[in-house]
Amino acid sequence: EADRILDDISHRRYNPLTGSWILVSPHRTKRPWQGAQENPSPPILPAHDPECYLCPGNPRVTGDVMPNYTNTSIFINDFSAVRESQPLYKPPRPRNTDTLELLQAQGVKGRCYVITFSPKHNATLADLSHEALLSIIATWTSLYTSHLPSSHAYFAPAPPDLGVVPPRDQYDYLQIFENKGAAMGCSNPHPHGQAWCTSGLPGEVSTELQHLTAYKKTHDGRGLLADYVHLELQKKERIVFHNSTWVALCPWWAVWPFETMLIPRREIPSLPALTREERDGLAEALSQITKRYDNLFQCSFPYSMGIHQAPLSGEAEEIAHLHLHFYPPLLRSASVRKFLVGYELMAEPQRDITPEQAAERLRNLDGTTVYRGVL
Amino acid sequence: EADRILDDISHRRYNPLTGSWILVSPHRTKRPWQGAQENPSPPILPAHDPECYLCPGNPRVTGDVMPNYTNTSIFINDFSAVRESQPLYKPPRPRNTDTLELLQAQGVKGRCYVITFSPKHNATLADLSHEALLSIIATWTSLYTSHLPSSHAYFAPAPPDLGVVPPRDQYDYLQIFENKGAAMGCSNPHPHGQAWCTSGLPGEVSTELQHLTAYKKTHDGRGLLADYVHLELQKKERIVFHNSTWVALCPWWAVWPFETMLIPRREIPSLPALTREERDGLAEALSQITKRYDNLFQCSFPYSMGIHQAPLSGEAEEIAHLHLHFYPPLLRSASVRKFLVGYELMAEPQRDITPEQAAERLRNLDGTTVYRGVL
Ligand SMILES: O=P(O)(O)O[C@H]1O[C@H](CO)[C@@H](O)[C@H](O)[C@H]1O
Ligand SMILES: O=P(O)(O)O[C@H]1O[C@H](CO)[C@@H](O)[C@H](O)[C@H]1O
Repeated sequence: EADRILDDISHRRYNPLTGSWILVSPHRTKRPWQGAQENPSPPILPAHDPECYLCPGNPRVTGDVMPNYTNTSIFINDFSAVRESQPLYKPPRPRNTDTLELLQAQGVKGRCYVITFSPKHNATLADLSHEALLSIIATWTSLYTSHLPSSHAYFAPAPPDLGVVPPRDQYDYLQIFENKGAAMGCSNPHPHGQAWCTSGLPGEVSTELQHLTAYKKTHDGRGLLADYVHLELQKKERIVFHNSTWVALCPWWAVWPFETMLIPRREIPSLPALTREERDGLAEALSQITKRYDNLFQCSFPYSMGIHQAPLSGEAEEIAHLHLHFYPPLLRSASVRKFLVGYELMAEPQRDITPEQAAERLRNLDGTTVYRGVL
Repeated sequence: EADRILDDISHRRYNPLTGSWILVSPHRTKRPWQGAQENPSPPILPAHDPECYLCPGNPRVTGDVMPNYTNTSIFINDFSAVRESQPLYKPPRPRNTDTLELLQAQGVKGRCYVITFSPKHNATLADLSHEALLSIIATWTSLYTSHLPSSHAYFAPAPPDLGVVPPRDQYDYLQIFENKGAAMGCSNPHPHGQAWCTSGLPGEVSTELQHLTAYKKTHDGRGLLADYVHLELQKKERIVFHNSTWVALCPWWAVWPFETMLIPRREIPSLPALTREERDGLAEALSQITKRYDNLFQCSFPYSMGIHQAPLSGEAEEIAHLHLHFYPPLLRSASVRKFLVGYELMAEPQRDITPEQAAERLRNLDGTTVYRGVL
């Protein structure tokens, strides 16, 4: 490959989804490490922990009791970052309107959900069966469709046993994500994710939509991610796994050492647009990527995962292309992570191995066997 | 204050320096914390550690020996993220030029320095005397001026005893920063910072310069940060400390819980433009802010600090306004940090206390006494 020169020189790469650049220093992994070591999460946890507020039948902080759920369960976060009702914010009238833009704020309303992925305290996505993964995808989908305007073609109320009370207001975006592992700020090992819906589009989401929109305009209506997946399937060097409907790859512009994206081959805007075959393909891709991650350093691999899809408003439905990002912090072993700190925060994100090197390692790992036998 | 309603409602705030928004959830600090605890750095370290590669007289990985320096010392990082000479990158000629923009890269050359702040292994900026801080400022300044084009009015070669070999090429930016504490990826407690110079402007720097430029155009040539400092000195609620030349404040748009900026009152582009009085003012502000940080949770407070100033090329000298950012991760105690993870990475940065609350706490702390008596 002509561009394998990038394995040896420092260079910048462009992220066309966000319009930003990252610095790649492939030669830098050789430096000695004397800094912080992560504590890999304890390998042996009970299947049910009486102290865990997410295990079935246990009480939460509020006194509410977790139902005896069999697959997934949803409740509103007891300490939500956004709330459904609060006073309106009216910006103060400053004496000098000329500097008004320096102190801008706007009220944000919304709701934060917690979604448990399994009743088993010691499971992770990598441990779950195909059916269990399909039921998580169904739960995410159902949460999304129940927050669409009732006039939307995909609108459907969540099934009553899921416990989703319809929202008071129409919100603009539903950000589904998972923080896994203490290294990624997760405060409870019980397998769970979150979903925050808000008024207004979050910054990262609107930046991506702007770039998708601009690309579509200048490329005869073709989608940026559709073109990108097509190109990567030809090049092969950044592909980790693919099936007939989904592709898992280390993007050209990855910031985190083993960052990946899961992208459906078909340009679809959101979860409810997935066909049966595509849901199977996503469940398989989730299983493959999380098993490979665990097998990389023989540990329960920490990450933040997030789903990007069309806003709830219906806006940009012709533009959005559903995809998942995995941002995992580990760099060299179960205990040595990459820190995105000084230079990265002040100047530009920097990575130490190329995405091609990361993809090659992940591609060569076992994607069907889980590294430990907890279940 | 009319806008103290923002202490109670979730809202977004605008960062006019970068054009991005952040989500503020003032009510959210009440949630229980069951996640990772930081290990506050060991309070007792020796003044000289024979194993430390930054202590005077000790060998480094390369076999080079650290000089017997008395204030600061500079050397080229043994594991630099960028290098001075490497093959040129020529993008491959793709069959389909229409998708060329999806795999963009450019070579980056440069040089990474390590700058020790004191020969004492167990000192931090908070422990150093006014004179010692002035000598760090002099070292940063000298590093900057020695990297300017020789035709530049501020150009001056670094004094020979500082050990700065003139760079091979003319670089575009010099990013000076410090990662302090294991929580911020610092691999050695010996007080030190770094400075990376690169070809091309780093993303964060060019974003700030774009916003400063646009503001200047639409505000009769006034500077965004000059106006901002002026406004904050009137409002007072986000000020932590000020003297006749510098202001330390929690910016309206702070992301990290106790994030601060140090801004000179006068709109000056870079370190060499500081007057004697302004250098004294900066030394005092550095001492004040780091002492307050340590006194907040009675620990050696971790942070990433960075200096933003005019590019080396001379470009944007009429636009740049020198300033320092401090990004400290601790939220509630020496052991509980804020994680900028799932929602923050996928959607929008989120904070749990308002900048006004953070500023009030920092303002009420002692800024002249160091919390521990190591020196
Ligand atoms: O060079 P150091 O201090 O070993 O490394 C630290 O700072 C660098 C610059 O912010 C980061 O790239 C590294 O991830 C971090 O561990
Ligand atoms: O809600 P949790 O899991 O307690 O909290 C975690 O995820 C949130 C969303 O990314 C972050 O804001 C918190 O800093 C993090 O600790």
